Amino acid sequence: MTFLKQDSLHKQVAELLVVRASGHLYDSQREYPLWELSNDDLQACLGMGIGGVILFGGCTKELQHRCQTLREWAETPLLLCADIEEGVGQRFQGGTWLAPPMAVGRLYLQDPHNALLYAEQYGRCIGAQARRCGLNWVLAPVCDVNSNPSNPVINMRAWGEDPVAVSKLVCAFNKGVASEGVLTCAKHFPGHGDTAIDSHLQLPVVDHELARLELFEFLPFKAAISSGVSSVMTAHILLSKIDESYPATLSSKVLTKILREKIGFDGLLVTDALVMKAISDQFGSNEAALMAFEAGADLIMMPKDPLGAINAICEGLLSGRVPMQRLEEALSRREKALAKPKVLTNSSNFTLLIDNHASFESPEECAFSDDLLRRCIEIRNPSEIPHEQCGVNLLRFDGVFNSSFLSNTSPAICLPQKAGYEPVLCHKFGVSPWQDDDTEPLALERFGQGAFLLQLFLRGNPFQGSIDEKKRWLTVVKQLTRKDRLAGLIVYGSHYLWEELLQAMPSSIPTAYCPGQTPRAQSMVLSSLFSYLDFEKDCHLSTFVQFMD
Amino acid sequence: MTFLKQDSLHKQVAELLVVRASGHLYDSQREYPLWELSNDDLQACLGMGIGGVILFGGCTKELQHRCQTLREWAETPLLLCADIEEGVGQRFQGGTWLAPPMAVGRLYLQDPHNALLYAEQYGRCIGAQARRCGLNWVLAPVCDVNSNPSNPVINMRAWGEDPVAVSKLVCAFNKGVASEGVLTCAKHFPGHGDTAIDSHLQLPVVDHELARLELFEFLPFKAAISSGVSSVMTAHILLSKIDESYPATLSSKVLTKILREKIGFDGLLVTDALVMKAISDQFGSNEAALMAFEAGADLIMMPKDPLGAINAICEGLLSGRVPMQRLEEALSRREKALAKPKVLTNSSNFTLLIDNHASFESPEECAFSDDLLRRCIEIRNPSEIPHEQCGVNLLRFDGVFNSSFLSNTSPAICLPQKAGYEPVLCHKFGVSPWQDDDTEPLALERFGQGAFLLQLFLRGNPFQGSIDEKKRWLTVVKQLTRKDRLAGLIVYGSHYLWEELLQAMPSSIPTAYCPGQTPRAQSMVLSSLFSYLDFEKDCHLSTFVQFMD
Repeated sequence: MTFLKQDSLHKQVAELLVVRASGHLYDSQREYPLWELSNDDLQACLGMGIGGVILFGGCTKELQHRCQTLREWAETPLLLCADIEEGVGQRFQGGTWLAPPMAVGRLYLQDPHNALLYAEQYGRCIGAQARRCGLNWVLAPVCDVNSNPSNPVINMRAWGEDPVAVSKLVCAFNKGVASEGVLTCAKHFPGHGDTAIDSHLQLPVVDHELARLELFEFLPFKAAISSGVSSVMTAHILLSKIDESYPATLSSKVLTKILREKIGFDGLLVTDALVMKAISDQFGSNEAALMAFEAGADLIMMPKDPLGAINAICEGLLSGRVPMQRLEEALSRREKALAKPKVLTNSSNFTLLIDNHASFESPEECAFSDDLLRRCIEIRNPSEIPHEQCGVNLLRFDGVFNSSFLSNTSPAICLPQKAGYEPVLCHKFGVSPWQDDDTEPLALERFGQGAFLLQLFLRGNPFQGSIDEKKRWLTVVKQLTRKDRLAGLIVYGSHYLWEELLQAMPSSIPTAYCPGQTPRAQSMVLSSLFSYLDFEKDCHLSTFVQFMD
Repeated sequence: MTFLKQDSLHKQVAELLVVRASGHLYDSQREYPLWELSNDDLQACLGMGIGGVILFGGCTKELQHRCQTLREWAETPLLLCADIEEGVGQRFQGGTWLAPPMAVGRLYLQDPHNALLYAEQYGRCIGAQARRCGLNWVLAPVCDVNSNPSNPVINMRAWGEDPVAVSKLVCAFNKGVASEGVLTCAKHFPGHGDTAIDSHLQLPVVDHELARLELFEFLPFKAAISSGVSSVMTAHILLSKIDESYPATLSSKVLTKILREKIGFDGLLVTDALVMKAISDQFGSNEAALMAFEAGADLIMMPKDPLGAINAICEGLLSGRVPMQRLEEALSRREKALAKPKVLTNSSNFTLLIDNHASFESPEECAFSDDLLRRCIEIRNPSEIPHEQCGVNLLRFDGVFNSSFLSNTSPAICLPQKAGYEPVLCHKFGVSPWQDDDTEPLALERFGQGAFLLQLFLRGNPFQGSIDEKKRWLTVVKQLTRKDRLAGLIVYGSHYLWEELLQAMPSSIPTAYCPGQTPRAQSMVLSSLFSYLDFEKDCHLSTFVQFMD
């Protein structure tokens, strides 16, 4: 083995890595500097042949610059991807953030024909906007069937709760993205829908037999593969009946025996992020990278230490632990994916325009987004929420920082204020609203004297642990109803929570549900419940927290 | 009067307006859509000859694009300005946000020579970064002498509390900005330092005689004018002894008799924002625009209705209420300012680079910013804050949204968590931490059991009303000390608060002050108080609120 040959081996292995970077341009702007490479490190990585970058944060204009720069730094045509399952706007300011896939899944129950059209348009919107930013790979669709309502990590991200419906919807979505010349990714194989543990924090165990998996969890993946999905992403879950030693990401039984040989998938197979605790804690990141590669993965997503991962894989190949054929097939699959027609591979087929458009989104995309929201908002008891003297607008959020749907001008905060409901934010880093009382959990003396408008922004979000807040809010609804202090309830996000609370809601109280949480979604729901307000005029805080000197 | 002539009059008057726009590129990204023109309206305004834009929000890269686009839309060379008294980073992500001017003012008390060098470098940093973004006019220095510690709107924005020191510092600052070919603005004439009311909300009244003003408030303005400041901005305050009918912005006694004739200022005179309540509530925006122009202002900042303001001024000119000479002199002053050497006037002397730099800030600018922070941080009792079992990290903020110094990875939140202090945010839209008890205001049962670290982010901020929280926090310090539950205190912002609390702090408890509030400032202070933590490694939340799928 000469140095030259080893050097070229390193470069070839490097191509299989996907490293994480901020969509912001400058190091000082990174939101997660421990996870996002600095520009110097990024340039070094790309210079040594690393072949993929996953981007988070920033605005669409920054992302355009970013993609251009990354391609200039790169040795090889890059895979540039993002977790934009619900639209470019989910990660990058300026793009469209659509109602979550589950909203389309719920429409399917009533109107399958139109739901499939929506799913395809959903994909087109994401594909077109991703391409406009310079990305060539969308890490969607989620093919997990959310059969467990307590799933903390999939939940609203799934296209439904039934494998057949999900299969049809993900194929329509895939068709939409692909029509824009953008690669797709079916995730998280072999199916992450029936878990109640967040794999970002711990390793979930699924104890289904292969027979059940084939009839249920596998269906959407098989369908997506048949409809030409570009890649499949592995799940960090342990299938105890299939491989009791290794999680799917590291299991050759799952990846090679089942996905490659049994199901016959011959596209790109990418791991979920290796920094996730379910993997990194148990196996170490470098060894995990080698194990995943050995088990059948082609691309290694977000290893903790990219150089360490490259070295580990090179050693595995040189020592004969992994056959060189694994490298050849992974590289060839990567090349084949990038060679698909219309896929962006270099700066020459992407022009960075100094554009004067008033919007990054096309009018059609805006109309689609609004239309989808309108279709999936549910209003029960469509009466007005009355004006109130000292009303309390209690807003429940996961967190208040870095939120793309929360600001001083968010409709959910400003509009009820115009009707006398002062905002009080409730989140895990705030002063506690709770007292130690099973039937009266809300400590009412910490709030104003008037009626409550409850606005609950809650969906199964990763990294939030598995706190079941549903019961607590159910008790709050009962507590406030008993005291005749509940003026209205809006749930933004989880329909599981909505359905539970709805049963406890007296029919006289205005109640609404919206799967989306964006300002636009808030505005649409609230315009039904406060239609007596002048929306154009009233949509700002009276106590503007804004500097103007 | 022919149509052509009237049309040209409209265009000439339009040149005198400065309208507000978001630094973000797209309409959907605007943070204050009611105040920030849409791109269509903006293009129309510039097409009809409006000559200035004030920008808020977005990142430096967006701002570069924005300035380029605005210049392309404009009929006339534009004044492009921003309220970046403390650095481009105060308004635009990616730029440097320096410690506030008052920090330099406090250094001046001990080391006037170096403080003046800092002030000049402060100006150079802002001028150079503003220019790099495409701006040509910085709305600084604040020339108000903060003689009233309760001033809610000037406070830390002032360069000090003594008119002679402030005079020297603003001249040094002005020299720094000007050396980069960027226009400056002395504000807020005749001096907004001795007010206790926020002019954003109400009209403050100052009852000083002219003699006192000449010996005190006027000094920094006179000094700035002598050192060549490009413009002066008016204050929305009523000088009851000089003009009991009209606030300074609308008073010809103040603007013409005093500033022009007595002081002899012949540069650009610009109003403060006309949308501010002190003006808009009483006079109406269009009439106020005409009154300001009539009183002697050359440029009209942020009229509520730009077209209405243009029409009102045109009518005033055509009816003879205001002599045409006023228009001629205003236009000529504007032209003269833009004709200064090196000032950016069109796209041809500004190139939008696809830059690959790792930082928008130069290494010298970063070093200066750090150096200034280091010099102005004060640590009393420099012992460590001990590790705590169930510690409470109580953080007081004005608000939690749209904050450029608060995020899930802010050192003030993450670092104490590593030492056992769980963050609890306290702000006006949170659940109340207060109980009705004069000596025990903090309702301790709403928090954990352990010791408290108090981190108070508090400075006199506009739009916050005039709540005097100083007394309340003083009582909290005493309450926690009595109960032996105070582990440490950090004040970020107001030295008035710091000085008051310091007196109540037992000498055994670690206590620190930093005038800056940025993540960098937080990190610098905390590294002294928690030096046993591994800063590089520990600087992130253990319960990362981050999606990664």
